[in-house]
Amino acid sequence: MNLWFTETENSNLAVKYRIKQVLAHKKTKFQELLVVETERFGRALILDGAVQTTIADEYVYHEMIAHVPLFTHPQPQKVLIIGGGDGGTVRETLKHRSVEEIHIVEIDPEVVAAAKQYLPELSSGFNDPRVTIHHLDGIEYIAGCQNEYDVLIIDSSDPVGPAVGLFQSQFYRQAARALKDDGIFVAQTESPWLNFGLTLPEIYHNIKAAFPLTRMYICNIPTYPCGLWSFTLGSKRYDPLEVNPDKIADLGYRYYTPDLHRAAFVLPRFLQDLL
Amino acid sequence: MNLWFTETENSNLAVKYRIKQVLAHKKTKFQELLVVETERFGRALILDGAVQTTIADEYVYHEMIAHVPLFTHPQPQKVLIIGGGDGGTVRETLKHRSVEEIHIVEIDPEVVAAAKQYLPELSSGFNDPRVTIHHLDGIEYIAGCQNEYDVLIIDSSDPVGPAVGLFQSQFYRQAARALKDDGIFVAQTESPWLNFGLTLPEIYHNIKAAFPLTRMYICNIPTYPCGLWSFTLGSKRYDPLEVNPDKIADLGYRYYTPDLHRAAFVLPRFLQDLL
Repeated sequence: MNLWFTETENSNLAVKYRIKQVLAHKKTKFQELLVVETERFGRALILDGAVQTTIADEYVYHEMIAHVPLFTHPQPQKVLIIGGGDGGTVRETLKHRSVEEIHIVEIDPEVVAAAKQYLPELSSGFNDPRVTIHHLDGIEYIAGCQNEYDVLIIDSSDPVGPAVGLFQSQFYRQAARALKDDGIFVAQTESPWLNFGLTLPEIYHNIKAAFPLTRMYICNIPTYPCGLWSFTLGSKRYDPLEVNPDKIADLGYRYYTPDLHRAAFVLPRFLQDLL
Repeated sequence: MNLWFTETENSNLAVKYRIKQVLAHKKTKFQELLVVETERFGRALILDGAVQTTIADEYVYHEMIAHVPLFTHPQPQKVLIIGGGDGGTVRETLKHRSVEEIHIVEIDPEVVAAAKQYLPELSSGFNDPRVTIHHLDGIEYIAGCQNEYDVLIIDSSDPVGPAVGLFQSQFYRQAARALKDDGIFVAQTESPWLNFGLTLPEIYHNIKAAFPLTRMYICNIPTYPCGLWSFTLGSKRYDPLEVNPDKIADLGYRYYTPDLHRAAFVLPRFLQDLL
């Protein structure tokens, strides 16, 4: 079929995916939602024109956003995920036996519904008794939290549209307050090669201002433009680089490994210089 | 200007770059050569429809293909580069003071001519007295070499068209013979997410059969499809993982660092499993 979805990164760069079938397409209250079956990467969730996740490579993003902070904390019990409506991050979080309670704050119920219907490989964890989903604004939700979570994961879309407030200094200060005294924060923090509204150094410095220890790590996501993607970890006590790789249990990974836990923090020179 | 170059990875995936200007476009004896000025990545060399290098990100590929093997060897003096007609690899190789003699075997003189005219940032090293350029077939050239080089770098295009023979077992065995007893080989070995003719595991195993020690390392190249790119190092004696990072001099890098020398060899689980 000569049907294509084109992701336009900016006015000068675009990526085109051949589509087998459009499975869902609607305007929700918050964004334009598209679920397609691509020829190359299988089913894909697309929000406001940007690929969020695909069946073929979703494990890269979800393993890296979940296991790096969860293994940095010695005993994570209570976890908050803001965004994450496709379910991949909670699926990975549930693999940690110490975790007793997970709250997901996904503003758009239609994203969760689409994931349940079209992405069962990702959304299986939504029915786990440890999980509660709140369809609320993450900024409002977190304003009511204090000293409550061990790990906080910001699994958001780009800093345009509904997620823009999740990249601001004020939100990161609230996030730090929502964490316990030894809590750990992580957020997806975009690509150094692109600029959707806020640049990666701006986001990094907003996080750095809110936490005693801040470290960026990277991975390669083939369906994110230019491939290189960053996460920024903010910590009140534990250093992700001090995790003993021998203590990292094998929970069934496809991208993450004990050695990669540390190697992901080794940044190329140009990225060090940006920060 | 609404002028676009589209790189078609396969029939299901494509990347589009907006073009300011077409600087050169010709059919050479070996391939279709295009030099364009892109809006996002500056000037780009494109061969047979595939972006080879751009001004904005060329340093990633060239630093990683040159410095990893050159710092693995304690005293590289004589270096052979097969391909490399844009000049970026020889520019990086020339930064190593121990290097006395570099031979470049680039089959297509028109690539070198285009690099000299349009990519002076890359091609500056061609005029260095230590450098000799041979416009010959790399396979034929190497058949005449024995026990001659300290480092051999295969800086080729994809395993389709003129470069296909550079990915075969027989060529790798000849490459091993061209090296001294403690020589080091490296080749760009494609992406695990793509398949141009030969898969990454096939190429890796062809190299592994020719060398006592074989190790793959990776980097992120934003203008290569899906971003993740691999190199495979074959060695007769020295192990790249035993290089002391404190002994890696700062030769003015933009991507490579002493810590990245080691971290680049830490592969994601799916890539370990592929090999």
